[in-house]
Amino acid sequence: MQFQITNEFIQQIEQLIVQRDGLAIKELLKDFHFADIAEILEELKSDEATYVVKLLESDITSDTLMELDEDVREKILDRLSPSEIAGELVEMDSDDAADVIGELDRDTQIQVIDKIDDDELAADLVELIGYDEKSAGGLMAKELVQVKETWTVAGCVREMRRQAKNVTRVHSIYVTDKEGKLKGRLSLKDLLTASEKAHISDVYIPKVDYVTVHTEGEEVAKIMKKYDLEAIPVVDEEGVLVGRITIDDMVDFIVDEAEKDYQLAAGITEEVEADDSIFRLTRARLPWLVLGLLGGLGSVFIMKYYDDAISEYAVLFFFAPLIAAMAGNVGVQSSAIIVQGLANDIIKGSLLNRLLKEVGLALINGIVLGGLVVLFGFIAGFDPKVTLSVAISILAVIIVAALVGTFVPIILDKRGIDPAIATGPFITTSNDIFGIFLFFYISKLILGF
Amino acid sequence: MQFQITNEFIQQIEQLIVQRDGLAIKELLKDFHFADIAEILEELKSDEATYVVKLLESDITSDTLMELDEDVREKILDRLSPSEIAGELVEMDSDDAADVIGELDRDTQIQVIDKIDDDELAADLVELIGYDEKSAGGLMAKELVQVKETWTVAGCVREMRRQAKNVTRVHSIYVTDKEGKLKGRLSLKDLLTASEKAHISDVYIPKVDYVTVHTEGEEVAKIMKKYDLEAIPVVDEEGVLVGRITIDDMVDFIVDEAEKDYQLAAGITEEVEADDSIFRLTRARLPWLVLGLLGGLGSVFIMKYYDDAISEYAVLFFFAPLIAAMAGNVGVQSSAIIVQGLANDIIKGSLLNRLLKEVGLALINGIVLGGLVVLFGFIAGFDPKVTLSVAISILAVIIVAALVGTFVPIILDKRGIDPAIATGPFITTSNDIFGIFLFFYISKLILGF
Repeated sequence: MQFQITNEFIQQIEQLIVQRDGLAIKELLKDFHFADIAEILEELKSDEATYVVKLLESDITSDTLMELDEDVREKILDRLSPSEIAGELVEMDSDDAADVIGELDRDTQIQVIDKIDDDELAADLVELIGYDEKSAGGLMAKELVQVKETWTVAGCVREMRRQAKNVTRVHSIYVTDKEGKLKGRLSLKDLLTASEKAHISDVYIPKVDYVTVHTEGEEVAKIMKKYDLEAIPVVDEEGVLVGRITIDDMVDFIVDEAEKDYQLAAGITEEVEADDSIFRLTRARLPWLVLGLLGGLGSVFIMKYYDDAISEYAVLFFFAPLIAAMAGNVGVQSSAIIVQGLANDIIKGSLLNRLLKEVGLALINGIVLGGLVVLFGFIAGFDPKVTLSVAISILAVIIVAALVGTFVPIILDKRGIDPAIATGPFITTSNDIFGIFLFFYISKLILGF
Repeated sequence: MQFQITNEFIQQIEQLIVQRDGLAIKELLKDFHFADIAEILEELKSDEATYVVKLLESDITSDTLMELDEDVREKILDRLSPSEIAGELVEMDSDDAADVIGELDRDTQIQVIDKIDDDELAADLVELIGYDEKSAGGLMAKELVQVKETWTVAGCVREMRRQAKNVTRVHSIYVTDKEGKLKGRLSLKDLLTASEKAHISDVYIPKVDYVTVHTEGEEVAKIMKKYDLEAIPVVDEEGVLVGRITIDDMVDFIVDEAEKDYQLAAGITEEVEADDSIFRLTRARLPWLVLGLLGGLGSVFIMKYYDDAISEYAVLFFFAPLIAAMAGNVGVQSSAIIVQGLANDIIKGSLLNRLLKEVGLALINGIVLGGLVVLFGFIAGFDPKVTLSVAISILAVIIVAALVGTFVPIILDKRGIDPAIATGPFITTSNDIFGIFLFFYISKLILGF
């Protein structure tokens, strides 16, 4: 049931755009979902996409614009006049409109807000763009259904009919006192089943989860996920209800966070997608490769330092990539588990317990892998002393790598640094160097070169 | 505003459990959210946790049980009788109840279902556990508000009041024909604003996104995310409405998927958490380490094959870990971007374009990194011919590694295999071997040993 774009379809649209056949394009896209139209626009050149945006009704294009990749949206907005942008914004939810305004330069922002006739919306937008993008204030929307505790159920239903027109989806009805301070919430179900004459104060639920405008987005996501909330009200410093965040906006936030962690682990510093430009992809990837190169050069020096051994124990040097790979793999495994645990708040218990567990785990893995090396050395007919020092080194390297992988993210997290940054090439590279150094150090002790 | 467990609090609870002081425990936990009670139970021993579950009202414990880690829940359920389990299930949404039953062994399943008095619920559960866990049928709940197209708005409101009692949150009202086939949907807003005498057939929206019971969970998540849906109806083969999936259940699913991809990339085969047992963590991690070890042993053989060169060009061997690290890092970067792109359906354009882009990107990175190596070799006073072969090898290795990292996931995806499996140690290991082989092959061509 999902729509699939074909090259033929894009060519057909492009041809109609060249012919400036607006009617035919409108007819063609009539029954399309805005998310599908967004996919089509991303395949077109910016001026073609802008033509389509101007052509279609703004209740469709406003949703379409929100679905677009930020880069594509930016290029289209650049080609629209302030009043055309304002026309799109009034059709959007206030949180989306604020996001779009936030992407414009200062001058355009002022011109666009000036063109918005609805003074309340304009004021809401000015308020929203004042908050940090990643805080609850920056994530919330102003649209919500709000009733006073003194009202009756019948009055409440009347008022809701009025307010509901501005709200795409009714999640919860929030109850406030005279000053607008959040007192509790009311479910639609309660409202449907309560007597018409009852007062809101008799039927509302006084317990309600909420966040303040300054709560960080990550924290909001955690609370909503933990308590299974579909929407959460946002209050200001005085406890006055100022907005609400819905779970669908958090889904994107949560997925973005998870993807960012994954990309960092893979050694990609900024959020990029497969279809970003070569320049942007290089900027995201090259720094980590340079770090890896420096690490590699470090191990060149370590081996050069021990090069006396090469005449007698050349095989030792053949094992260096294996040792480095083991150290890197173990470090990435340990750190990935810790980073996810930190993100989900499940790193409990004392540091000592964690230390013992990691050492235990590393011992098991190290003994198995060391044993395999001994077996391999025996079959391949290597000098048993060399095989033994490789096996013992693997055991030691795995323990050290696991500890580095575990504690570097924990320490970073305690210092308020995103631990995900440590999982990727950073851990791999430092473990490569540690590993090779430890390997030659232990081998020298055993073989005595 | 989030609750934080302290050790003192856990000790207090444990003491009350030892004293079998049920009243005091009830009083202590009275105002707690079920998600917080779940956190507390996870800190207790299984028999202590079971005591608390039996003590509290099942409308709370049923939610609490759903919040628990599967392992913890299993241990508690083992200690409950079939009728105690049935008592918890009747308080749950049908999708959750089906998940819990799915975790029981066959005999207990039959006994528990036998103890459920509500025949409709029992039949629903038998239906739900028949579906694949990861399909829409396995993910859906049976609770929904369903009206017939022939009803009036007033009749519909009456019927909704009745149905709403079984539904925790009303998302959408689904409209069906006489046979129960899905015809469209109705928003609460439309219902609030329509005339009481109007017929549903006049006010409902005939366009509705839906999935069938056999649609895969991943596909459901994509559709809901793309079209910003909070709930989606599920139909059977005949188009009869049989359930609905809400976005809050998909949030867990989406996050789990993202975390699984991340763990696979880090070389962890099954979903594990930091607080899982050492045995389970070993089982998840050791296979990838063995794979890495085999790769490392492969490179031992490659270097042994070229060991004639060691007397004249020992430095070459010192560079082997660097080459392997570069190949591994580039491969992981390329594959992570492709895997995420595939997961989000944004890998568009022809394979040729992607090939050209990856080669271009690899050329830029390779030239920069090769240049740095030449600079380093010059400063460190290495043989210029050796430095040159390292630099040229890096360029070649990066191009090959990028191509492997890009195309292995694409090929796996085309064959219906989860491409995430390729991002981790699998790509790293094969790129390590390719890299080292290519390095010595090219060096031999240049240096002629």
